[in-house]
Amino acid sequence: MELFIDRDALSRGLARIQGIIERRTTQPVLSHVLLHAREGSLRLTATDTEVGYVGEIAANVQKNGELAVDAASLFQIVRSLPEATVRLTRLDGNRLDVKSGRAKFTLHGLAAEEYPTLPPFEASATATMESKDLSRLVEQVAFSIATEDVRWGINGAHVEEVTVDGARRIRMVATDRHRLACAEAPFEGSTRFTPRMLVPRKALAVLGKLLDGGAETIDVDFGESALQLRRPTETFWFRLLDGEFPDYRAVIPSDNKHRAIVRRADLASTLRRVVILIPDRARPVRFAFGADELTVDVHNVDRGDVSESLPIELDGNPVTVGFNARYLLEILGVMRGDRVVLELAHPLAPCLVRDPDVNDAQFVVMPMRLD
Amino acid sequence: MELFIDRDALSRGLARIQGIIERRTTQPVLSHVLLHAREGSLRLTATDTEVGYVGEIAANVQKNGELAVDAASLFQIVRSLPEATVRLTRLDGNRLDVKSGRAKFTLHGLAAEEYPTLPPFEASATATMESKDLSRLVEQVAFSIATEDVRWGINGAHVEEVTVDGARRIRMVATDRHRLACAEAPFEGSTRFTPRMLVPRKALAVLGKLLDGGAETIDVDFGESALQLRRPTETFWFRLLDGEFPDYRAVIPSDNKHRAIVRRADLASTLRRVVILIPDRARPVRFAFGADELTVDVHNVDRGDVSESLPIELDGNPVTVGFNARYLLEILGVMRGDRVVLELAHPLAPCLVRDPDVNDAQFVVMPMRLD
Repeated sequence: MELFIDRDALSRGLARIQGIIERRTTQPVLSHVLLHAREGSLRLTATDTEVGYVGEIAANVQKNGELAVDAASLFQIVRSLPEATVRLTRLDGNRLDVKSGRAKFTLHGLAAEEYPTLPPFEASATATMESKDLSRLVEQVAFSIATEDVRWGINGAHVEEVTVDGARRIRMVATDRHRLACAEAPFEGSTRFTPRMLVPRKALAVLGKLLDGGAETIDVDFGESALQLRRPTETFWFRLLDGEFPDYRAVIPSDNKHRAIVRRADLASTLRRVVILIPDRARPVRFAFGADELTVDVHNVDRGDVSESLPIELDGNPVTVGFNARYLLEILGVMRGDRVVLELAHPLAPCLVRDPDVNDAQFVVMPMRLD
Repeated sequence: MELFIDRDALSRGLARIQGIIERRTTQPVLSHVLLHAREGSLRLTATDTEVGYVGEIAANVQKNGELAVDAASLFQIVRSLPEATVRLTRLDGNRLDVKSGRAKFTLHGLAAEEYPTLPPFEASATATMESKDLSRLVEQVAFSIATEDVRWGINGAHVEEVTVDGARRIRMVATDRHRLACAEAPFEGSTRFTPRMLVPRKALAVLGKLLDGGAETIDVDFGESALQLRRPTETFWFRLLDGEFPDYRAVIPSDNKHRAIVRRADLASTLRRVVILIPDRARPVRFAFGADELTVDVHNVDRGDVSESLPIELDGNPVTVGFNARYLLEILGVMRGDRVVLELAHPLAPCLVRDPDVNDAQFVVMPMRLD
């Protein structure tokens, strides 16, 4: 293997896989990236066996070949190199020579044969989405996935096809029992969802980063217990978790007698101040929805009291509810519009949070009992 | 106490004391800042009893008064406030009311009488320095202070008055036995140094931040086992450690047969690459000084080899030495000029590092034995 490649393109490619490779693993090969040079391109392959990535970078390949090297070291080295062009050469004994200007590294690698092969993937359906739509689904839903819940069925994001306002949509839903996030986006083509397919947290974290920039559309292939996302020069594959997501529709409240519209930025800045006095442990913040004013306050915490009022449009009678303000803050942070509507049936009922102007996401927060 | 004050000015003032107050202490009052309002200004006082700060901020004071409140909470609150003006009011029960626009906080505080009084300071001499010069001394020396050395005498920076090239200078020196840093700057006025006065690490850390921006000159008052630094609206005071600094002059090598001049940015970028392959534990990097080229390399580390050459001007015979590259990198990082000269007598002698063009700082690095 011998090739010349643009330092910044290689650096960007290596940056994309840093979230996939496992640094502390009992299998050292999983901290490696597989380099594969052939006909004008260098292919990077990274996997932890649950998720896998393959990306192609244009290169001036003098001699084909492959080799696996430590991905973190190679990334650190490449981005520190002094010249815009890098020469990669495979030496005897699975060593990789990295040369750029006056800098010369020799890395100890592993033979390509030792690298795990990604399982074969057969697509039974393919949907095409806008990258920015998929990016929004991930951002609006992933934060609500349960971290260490004993109930397997909520340890990932549920995905399904739904019809909203007469149009086909891909929907993603996640919950940790304290809050729920649900978002939809349009697609073209076909899907093959089953009731027991959950997207794991790590796949969503990697996906969120991969979707930054790049091509405008992305193909989603449906395989056997796995999904694959494809763009012209890269493929990202991940195993689905097998688990039955709870009946989330039962949790989304519909008959809400109290409905308050508030400016999103105002409520977020108020809540950012309110949580300053609240220690890490959850403690309810009092939300008093009045005729034209919402008063948010916390009393008798160790360090003091805080109270703030902001204008709202209230539909229904005044009502006072307790919430974990940090949950609401996270939701406000992933919403897009200027306004947000909070809807609830009574003070101990789940609260629906959504954009009153755009119907592509809804959030539910469970109330907390006020002392 | 009741006053109106500019939010950003108060926020900047509170930012300056965050490095002084102790967050985890058995004396809760030390996590507080003392507020003292009187005649057009709010005075902030912060201390951990070893260092102390007093700063004045212009304020529209309606009613004099004082109160101590948690410094971290007040800082977080003030910088989050929605309006440019903040009203501070002392309420019954040592509570502080903080109001700005629609936000209203009430913090539980402590009576001013509970706040430790700073010890009286009597100046027996006062030197005046440029702020940027003092800032440079701190930056060029503080990083070399021993962290946990059993020898008390090197747990702080030594300061003294010296004459360099016929001019009076304040000199600061620190060492951890592996490297030594020594820098000088001009002053006016008088000093009163004793052989047993060491500036503690924390005082230098705080000072480094306080010197960012602000007035162009600063007065240094010499007191009994303490120093005080004064600018028009702020005073920073700290106790000196009692300890005898070793005879550092004996460590600075003078009769150096090998002398190499190299571009500082080139050597720093080379060393930043070289350390990528070196684990945290110290391991010598080989520096081979040739007639017109320095070759830096590391071989047989776990992850591979690295080698790099850069042009030098060598005076004397070629010589090969081992160094801890991270120590050299830190030194290069605090130097200012384009060029740096490395001087040594033989491969196992201490190496002198300095600017060949400006004589205001010198550094010494102990060599490491190459395997």
